[in-house]
Amino acid sequence: MPTLGAVLGAVGPGTVEISLRQAPGVSQQHGFVHAGAVAAIADTAAGYAALTLMPEGRGVLTAEFKINLVAPAVGDLIVARGKVVKAGRTLTLAQAEVFAVTGGAEKLVAVLTATLMAIKGRDGVTD
Amino acid sequence: MPTLGAVLGAVGPGTVEISLRQAPGVSQQHGFVHAGAVAAIADTAAGYAALTLMPEGRGVLTAEFKINLVAPAVGDLIVARGKVVKAGRTLTLAQAEVFAVTGGAEKLVAVLTATLMAIKGRDGVTD
Amino acid sequence: MPTLGAVLGAVGPGTVEISLRQAPGVSQQHGFVHAGAVAAIADTAAGYAALTLMPEGRGVLTAEFKINLVAPAVGDLIVARGKVVKAGRTLTLAQAEVFAVTGGAEKLVAVLTATLMAIKGRDGVTD
Amino acid sequence: MPTLGAVLGAVGPGTVEISLRQAPGVSQQHGFVHAGAVAAIADTAAGYAALTLMPEGRGVLTAEFKINLVAPAVGDLIVARGKVVKAGRTLTLAQAEVFAVTGGAEKLVAVLTATLMAIKGRDGVTD
Repeated sequence: MPTLGAVLGAVGPGTVEISLRQAPGVSQQHGFVHAGAVAAIADTAAGYAALTLMPEGRGVLTAEFKINLVAPAVGDLIVARGKVVKAGRTLTLAQAEVFAVTGGAEKLVAVLTATLMAIKGRDGVTD
Repeated sequence: MPTLGAVLGAVGPGTVEISLRQAPGVSQQHGFVHAGAVAAIADTAAGYAALTLMPEGRGVLTAEFKINLVAPAVGDLIVARGKVVKAGRTLTLAQAEVFAVTGGAEKLVAVLTATLMAIKGRDGVTD
Repeated sequence: MPTLGAVLGAVGPGTVEISLRQAPGVSQQHGFVHAGAVAAIADTAAGYAALTLMPEGRGVLTAEFKINLVAPAVGDLIVARGKVVKAGRTLTLAQAEVFAVTGGAEKLVAVLTATLMAIKGRDGVTD
Repeated sequence: MPTLGAVLGAVGPGTVEISLRQAPGVSQQHGFVHAGAVAAIADTAAGYAALTLMPEGRGVLTAEFKINLVAPAVGDLIVARGKVVKAGRTLTLAQAEVFAVTGGAEKLVAVLTATLMAIKGRDGVTD
């Protein structure tokens, strides 16, 4: 995330916000933020949202995610808002919406759904 | 992609390879390449694979993609191999497999499926 | 849908509800409604939701969908509620939530995201 | 599956084939097999493929799947071929390709990716 210049915003139980300021390094050939960068902050927002509901000593890994990109990510700021849809013992389903913010106005640019897997500590792997 | 340090490899009709050398900027808290970076090179490989089959003057935008992360992306090199599954006039379906390469041995780390939309030139948008 | 015994419920601009009464034909080996039947009513709810926003003479075809099944579909009634997230000229993004209803109480069982493609009349195909 | 008229075909370690004969009950308004029925046999093929690699006494449940529909499912027979991509202790990733068969010629109509979760016996649930 630091590579992208992403910053953590509001955090609540089951919700996390991640922001990304438009910059050359994360933009692509059409002049807007690359799908990969949009996906990265959306996945991170969803994953951290899941993490807020985990018991201490547990981490999460993304088992899979799917993202639909519905508009170009052009704006002063790109904001991803993650929230938990269903928290489970093994699997948690979370979603994130990504908005491009320009002069206070928000426009939906992407919608992500992610399956997060609970892991024990730092040695966890995805299977 | 330059932000991530990704490089273009073999390109054929409907196939593209993208590589990423393991580096601090693309790694995450568990010590392996972040899901977002894996997704970014996989999506790029799939998108470029679609682009190789487009008529001149046409570009592609990712409408959506889905990625399953099946093992930690740990290796000297992360390689994404994209290939077109079905090329259409409006929509192209492409897939990418991502491998972690260590001392010549390859291990599957992720599988991506992407829907790419054909656009005209640089002004194209996703709808 | 008649094969499954599904019935159309409330319809609004960009929203559609489809219901399915639990029955032997749509249940699977663990005693609850089969993932395929849950997916079918969810996809149909999302597709019809998209259809409500289409101009006359246009249809929609599902280009792709993704569904997460978060709980067994056990209940007197299975209800899928589809809504349009972003209507576009070529592609429309819709989502559906599926609930199991037992004695008036609803439980989330699945979440679907679908990309619908606008087509002209009955000869339309997915590319 | 009996509701749809689907039949089990070739089964190997990590691979399963399911077929569906075109019939009024599984067709939709455009005259071809409904996306929901295509998804159902594809998901079943992927799930059974995962099951072939499970130890005795274990079942699988679909945690999520994603399907891309690339051509109308029109043919004498619709065949779904599932195969395991990565078998894990908790999660298994499987894919299925669906073909429409007409007079011996096969045409790709859909590609599915599914995450299956291992469960113990018949009481298993998805979380």
